[in-house]
Amino acid sequence: MFITFEGGEGSGKSTAIKKIVETLQKEGYEVVLTREPGGTPISEEIRNVILDKKNTNMDPRTEALLYAASRRQHIVEKIIPALKEGKIVLCDRYLDSSLAYQGGARGLGVDKILEVNQYATDGFEPDLTLLFDIEPEKGLARIAANAGREVNRLDLEKIQFHHDVRNAFLGLAKRFPQRYFIVDASKSIEEVFNQAMNEIERRLHK
Amino acid sequence: MFITFEGGEGSGKSTAIKKIVETLQKEGYEVVLTREPGGTPISEEIRNVILDKKNTNMDPRTEALLYAASRRQHIVEKIIPALKEGKIVLCDRYLDSSLAYQGGARGLGVDKILEVNQYATDGFEPDLTLLFDIEPEKGLARIAANAGREVNRLDLEKIQFHHDVRNAFLGLAKRFPQRYFIVDASKSIEEVFNQAMNEIERRLHK
Repeated sequence: MFITFEGGEGSGKSTAIKKIVETLQKEGYEVVLTREPGGTPISEEIRNVILDKKNTNMDPRTEALLYAASRRQHIVEKIIPALKEGKIVLCDRYLDSSLAYQGGARGLGVDKILEVNQYATDGFEPDLTLLFDIEPEKGLARIAANAGREVNRLDLEKIQFHHDVRNAFLGLAKRFPQRYFIVDASKSIEEVFNQAMNEIERRLHK
Repeated sequence: MFITFEGGEGSGKSTAIKKIVETLQKEGYEVVLTREPGGTPISEEIRNVILDKKNTNMDPRTEALLYAASRRQHIVEKIIPALKEGKIVLCDRYLDSSLAYQGGARGLGVDKILEVNQYATDGFEPDLTLLFDIEPEKGLARIAANAGREVNRLDLEKIQFHHDVRNAFLGLAKRFPQRYFIVDASKSIEEVFNQAMNEIERRLHK
């Protein structure tokens, strides 16, 4: 089973993933935890080009193509072989992050990004996409609180971007209802984990 | 005017480009000579990932997406700005090399590669594509002669690949007749240059 984790900042996604890995391993499953962009040596090399601070003049379409290239290698070299060995693959961010961030919030168009990625994925999709959904104001307040500070002007300047990302993710959840499950990430850490874990168990045993 | 140079090995392409640059500069044109993959710092970084000898397990689709990403940056950062300044841009290999090598000879499909590259080029095309066409046997014999040796077994093992590349290029020339001009590269260096130069002059003055 291939499970992807999506969501904005302060949604508790990383904390939940950690507990999910531990729980599945205790239950005897072999688990591979991976992330995007990255996951293989070639994908990491591509990630370095994307994130290189020198490359401030990178065109948005160059970036989208690099994400797709990195994803292709990740799928072929790591994800599909692990699934063939019967492992559960958990991926922190995947295609849907490209769709929501580049396609939605940065305005390249969800359909265009989807098209480029069709070539990379060749129809391969997650069995389950867990969307950790939270109002951006609440997510940012959580991050600030963890850092021992209040929400600042810079946080608020970016708030519209985070709303656009959230709306793009919610649109994707409507578009791909079979594989999407929305976790209400405004709840406590324990409750967020429980919602996600229950859905994974339900899918594993059906 | 944006002119691209395509063709197989031993076609005299590089020698002709050098003389064309000199001739155009003597005539008073501002000329930018560039190449693919590469042409900008970001494109060169991507080129390094593509050509890195460690990356022997690179998936063909990863490679095709990286070529498209590199091309996108090259177009936006270098080619289009130079054209806007009224310069003539000469590019040693371009989109058509991806179409002929990956799409045709390596079997990924010309249409598929074209589709991925539509996203990179956004409809932007060369005004003229000069195809230096030569029978692979003749091209290889030339390379061997220049290196002071005879055609060897290794050269011949690859001969089918070079035929596939050539056929793919000839197919593209039929598909895009407006921008394609076929140079008979089996002729002498001087004649090859003259054919290419005459066609460039014709297009410049029409």
